Amino acid sequence: MPASNSLPARVEQVINIKAERILHPFSPLTVQEITQAAGLVKNEYPGVELNFKCVTLREPEKEVMKEWLKAEEGLKPQIDRKAFVVYYIARTPDIFETVINLGTGTFEYKTKLEGLHSCADGEEVMEMERVCLADEGVQAEIAKLQLPEGTIVIADPWIYGSDGVDDERKQWQCYLYSRSKDNADGNHYANPIPISPVVDVATRKVVRIDRLPTGIDDTITDYKPHKPILNEYTPEHQKLRTDLKPLNIIQPEGVSFRFSKNGEELEWQKWKFRVGFNHREGMVIYNVSYDGRDVFYRLSLSDMAIPYADPRKPYHRKQAFDLGDAGAGLMANNLKLGCDCLGTIAYLSFPIADDKGEPVVMENCICVHEQDAGIQFKHMNYRTGNSVISRMRELVLQSIITVANYEYIFAFIFNTAGELSYEVRATGILSTAPLDPEIKDCPNFGTIVHPGVLAQHHQHIFSLRIDPAIDGFGNKVIYEEAKPMERDDPFNPFGTGYYITETKVETEGGFLESPENNRVFKIQNPKHLNPVNNKPVGYKIQAPPFQKLLASPDSYHFKRAEFADKAVYVTKYKDWELYAAGMYTNQSRGGHGIREWVKRGTKFDTEEGDDIVVWVQFGINHIPRIEDFPVMPVETLRVHLKPVNFFDKNPALDLPPSTQSINKSVLLNVDGNNHKQGGVEAEIGGDGEVAAVHSSSGSGACCQ
Amino acid sequence: MPASNSLPARVEQVINIKAERILHPFSPLTVQEITQAAGLVKNEYPGVELNFKCVTLREPEKEVMKEWLKAEEGLKPQIDRKAFVVYYIARTPDIFETVINLGTGTFEYKTKLEGLHSCADGEEVMEMERVCLADEGVQAEIAKLQLPEGTIVIADPWIYGSDGVDDERKQWQCYLYSRSKDNADGNHYANPIPISPVVDVATRKVVRIDRLPTGIDDTITDYKPHKPILNEYTPEHQKLRTDLKPLNIIQPEGVSFRFSKNGEELEWQKWKFRVGFNHREGMVIYNVSYDGRDVFYRLSLSDMAIPYADPRKPYHRKQAFDLGDAGAGLMANNLKLGCDCLGTIAYLSFPIADDKGEPVVMENCICVHEQDAGIQFKHMNYRTGNSVISRMRELVLQSIITVANYEYIFAFIFNTAGELSYEVRATGILSTAPLDPEIKDCPNFGTIVHPGVLAQHHQHIFSLRIDPAIDGFGNKVIYEEAKPMERDDPFNPFGTGYYITETKVETEGGFLESPENNRVFKIQNPKHLNPVNNKPVGYKIQAPPFQKLLASPDSYHFKRAEFADKAVYVTKYKDWELYAAGMYTNQSRGGHGIREWVKRGTKFDTEEGDDIVVWVQFGINHIPRIEDFPVMPVETLRVHLKPVNFFDKNPALDLPPSTQSINKSVLLNVDGNNHKQGGVEAEIGGDGEVAAVHSSSGSGACCQ
Repeated sequence: MPASNSLPARVEQVINIKAERILHPFSPLTVQEITQAAGLVKNEYPGVELNFKCVTLREPEKEVMKEWLKAEEGLKPQIDRKAFVVYYIARTPDIFETVINLGTGTFEYKTKLEGLHSCADGEEVMEMERVCLADEGVQAEIAKLQLPEGTIVIADPWIYGSDGVDDERKQWQCYLYSRSKDNADGNHYANPIPISPVVDVATRKVVRIDRLPTGIDDTITDYKPHKPILNEYTPEHQKLRTDLKPLNIIQPEGVSFRFSKNGEELEWQKWKFRVGFNHREGMVIYNVSYDGRDVFYRLSLSDMAIPYADPRKPYHRKQAFDLGDAGAGLMANNLKLGCDCLGTIAYLSFPIADDKGEPVVMENCICVHEQDAGIQFKHMNYRTGNSVISRMRELVLQSIITVANYEYIFAFIFNTAGELSYEVRATGILSTAPLDPEIKDCPNFGTIVHPGVLAQHHQHIFSLRIDPAIDGFGNKVIYEEAKPMERDDPFNPFGTGYYITETKVETEGGFLESPENNRVFKIQNPKHLNPVNNKPVGYKIQAPPFQKLLASPDSYHFKRAEFADKAVYVTKYKDWELYAAGMYTNQSRGGHGIREWVKRGTKFDTEEGDDIVVWVQFGINHIPRIEDFPVMPVETLRVHLKPVNFFDKNPALDLPPSTQSINKSVLLNVDGNNHKQGGVEAEIGGDGEVAAVHSSSGSGACCQ
Repeated sequence: MPASNSLPARVEQVINIKAERILHPFSPLTVQEITQAAGLVKNEYPGVELNFKCVTLREPEKEVMKEWLKAEEGLKPQIDRKAFVVYYIARTPDIFETVINLGTGTFEYKTKLEGLHSCADGEEVMEMERVCLADEGVQAEIAKLQLPEGTIVIADPWIYGSDGVDDERKQWQCYLYSRSKDNADGNHYANPIPISPVVDVATRKVVRIDRLPTGIDDTITDYKPHKPILNEYTPEHQKLRTDLKPLNIIQPEGVSFRFSKNGEELEWQKWKFRVGFNHREGMVIYNVSYDGRDVFYRLSLSDMAIPYADPRKPYHRKQAFDLGDAGAGLMANNLKLGCDCLGTIAYLSFPIADDKGEPVVMENCICVHEQDAGIQFKHMNYRTGNSVISRMRELVLQSIITVANYEYIFAFIFNTAGELSYEVRATGILSTAPLDPEIKDCPNFGTIVHPGVLAQHHQHIFSLRIDPAIDGFGNKVIYEEAKPMERDDPFNPFGTGYYITETKVETEGGFLESPENNRVFKIQNPKHLNPVNNKPVGYKIQAPPFQKLLASPDSYHFKRAEFADKAVYVTKYKDWELYAAGMYTNQSRGGHGIREWVKRGTKFDTEEGDDIVVWVQFGINHIPRIEDFPVMPVETLRVHLKPVNFFDKNPALDLPPSTQSINKSVLLNVDGNNHKQGGVEAEIGGDGEVAAVHSSSGSGACCQ
């Protein structure tokens, strides 16, 4: 909840240093730039209170950036810094979008938006809580529950979603819960209350008090006195196990990565890239290269949709777009040393804007560290007994967001074999609903996770935006499949043969995965062929298959989650086309995102390569287990991007071998060693003939 | 290559200690027992040389074990130790199988096998190399290649496979390669030679010299002089990177696991289980319980099939069953401290038998260690700013096998959330084939990975055998799917609802995965219901979907790989039904494995639960990249077994919080902290009415 504008002295210092240098075109807006942009907007509205939703970098057009990137240092063209700003006239539905040239101090455009709503912010959420709980009507309803004295009632404002009925105005659906007075960190999700007030953002009034169905159908029954039963997740409420011994990660010579440009550029194991951060996407990775070769132009989580299975009012509107409706930057945790990460950790902090347009530095919103990831490769020559082993190292850029009840741990992970992954760990607390305690069997749209508490099934569908630059900007997408050779093909007399096919993605569109055909999507540069095997250089996408959005195609869930129906979308690059469900997801009706964009049907130049964007969807259908409550063990998903014929051999081959002199492992017990190795070889003499047959020699050495 | 029978003194000591105590019925055969069993067999054949293929524990019948397990310590029934022995009359095709009661010294049965072949052993492989390379005809063929002086020619004996043509006798197909003389660890797979002699095991003679096709079709062309081009994987041939800093794992208070029973029983974080090891499966895990509750009776990798895509003779027979044809125990690496593992490591050693029936201790064939696995759960209360974070710890039992060119890193991984995984990392060197160097474009059944070298596509399909005991032996399998609610269902007016269905596995059979329906297989105990939600307690299986065997159903590849066509097989438990492709896979013709067994069509008792076995298949279709050569970065697969309504809340909840005082992370740089937290609450007064609305309080503490 970023709300403060009092920056500690040290941060001011860091920020001011940043301002003194020439900013990289991808540098997030500085504190000064945020202040300048918001100030220019405020000047337009003397005496009028504004509610800022976003003051963020307007990234340069790609064509401009291409010129900039290829120009030599010192000869770079100047690119004006620009801000993208969204704001409301406070306490009105009037919302505006503007782009400001910070170099000239002028507005490039300023538009009043119609039929669109912007995201949440921390102050708005708190205000909704206040309005809801202070409302006399709500208080009268709460009183009917006859809660015990000292019970604390809490309102979790939920984004309103959409069903096309009376949802033109921006509203919040508040879900009510209780906790005991003596525990501020009490888990209120164990005690949901069947009252759900709706608050209008502009008027700041409760406009409706929904009653929640508490049975297995949609009947609303009379209130029953609610007797809270606690189910706490905090350690002081547990009998903690005492037999888990500490495990420390020590890097005696320091880390292997190197920052430059005030922490915005990172170099590690031949990888080089820029780190950005913004209100909406949180972490953004720019200009990824490996050993001097371009790989990706821009990588970010584009959006996510979390639709719920429960069809009953008001749950039928329960679908969150956590990035579009709130913002992965806005919700980023302040990561704490020794709590969120293990090892030697660097933290990055970036400013975003609060609701007043004031800069707020999101401290430690990204942590950077290395981790060991087991063996990278091994081969033991059975003839000599000699082994070659290298260990995989990963560089992790992690950001954790809290979306009210839920947590997502996001990480870009680079490794020593030229591979790059995006990892999501889902954790936090299930969003719960009240259920009559006498109901003992779970309804088929949810799981009972605590007496009187239903955790409804829901999907988490993520969209990772990949703007590739595989050896340059001319790229294409193909998918490869493996097929059995025809049984009557004379080339396949024993029926054992199979082969691969390649299908080019020729026009913009969405595509399904097909594990039964081993379908693999690859991003290639058709003009750069591997020198050894003549295949186009490329990276393949390995993403876990997932169940697509289950909501009906005529539902608002479906219309709004424009990316959630396909595994991969491919579009022609367009400036600022960044968010798969559209720029404004809050109470959206669809039609502004990727499903709309691909209707353009742009044909790609697959011969020369084209400037494309690849959107990779992945997710889980979360059928809650009781083990997910009161806080959920992580469920982990990883999307891998791996080189395919991009290099001319294993790029990890030059990793130093895994040796005890470096690894300093500790032996718990040792037995002897009587493995035996051996083989036989034929040696060729001067005439090309076999001169001798003898045993292989070798000492059975590991690389100590 | 286990071949020695001279045990170091310390090992003798360990083994003798073992022999002095009463052995657990699942204890692998001791050195003395192996000696006794082989001796009893040898006594039957005075003056006759025998070739032992396996002298291993014959596990007790499950019904016997059930009695034993439930009897109290001190009152356990005595169970005679038994050995299962397979042997040949040396240099003949005559193969026998016997079970010997070691308590009574008597043969339970002894059978001459017909039409079956046993596995490889280290001595046999070396003998095949010798026969092949010493053969005059082979040497004459090699001479025609006019290899440079000092070239070393190597023969990789490959199991012969099967095509139903002249393969009644046990044979080996030798693939030839070359390396330079001055490098005993030279990568010969970079220089395949188009000559492939076939050796008869019984006669020890080359029976045929196959010529390999080197074009893109099956034509055999004249020899061309072969000019080796090196492509080495050993570190001394690389310019090693120097910027990867050491990363050490320190456990200052030691490990959290505890061995008992001479290393065969392990306790860690409420898990308790037994470790076994045998010639064929390598690691076996028995009697897994969590917090005193039974979970699994027996877990092991059952087998694997690696069929190749190239349909041309002799490659059409190239399909390995690395467990059945050779043995994961036989091929287990001697793991080295600081090379194969990081942290504080315990190593286990177990004896197996060599070809003479002599015991060989496989030193350090399993390593046991803990690893950090990132955050286990996190929640940050946005109202107080307080976070609760615990880190996941994993206990890893790792074994690495070398199958000539290829390595598999196998691991059973237990975690702190009651989850158990089986991980496979594929690495090592691709099995390569010669290709005319003038061919520049890859044929569609392989990838050129080096000039003149083709790596043929191949599948790796694994079968994990799960013998469950979820709260006892009465278990069943169901699969759950998520389905959209009918659009015209009045309960689903907005089209957003979805629900889950459950399908019981009522009879023995094989089943496909179905990610598009979110199909999840669960093993449940129908008589044990979760006390909170009335669902049967269970564990779910999360395995990555994979492409099934591509070979035609009428091919020998298909007939032999009896498990490779389904994601999950479920059978009624039968004693010693352990290997999915049958007991004898070498040159098998099918009909002895799981596809045959399920034809029994045994009906399960899904009301009371039944004694079932679940076979989980997973794999990769390996379309080689050039990056996989000359040694392959790991490709990782994990099968997860996760509790579903087995506990009554998150079983990791009692993990100690992640704190800096324990983790001792190191800060690389620090900025200040001005995140702000906050929320609003309503407090209930004595009359059940809202008495006050106030701000939430909290300090934003992490659990330091």
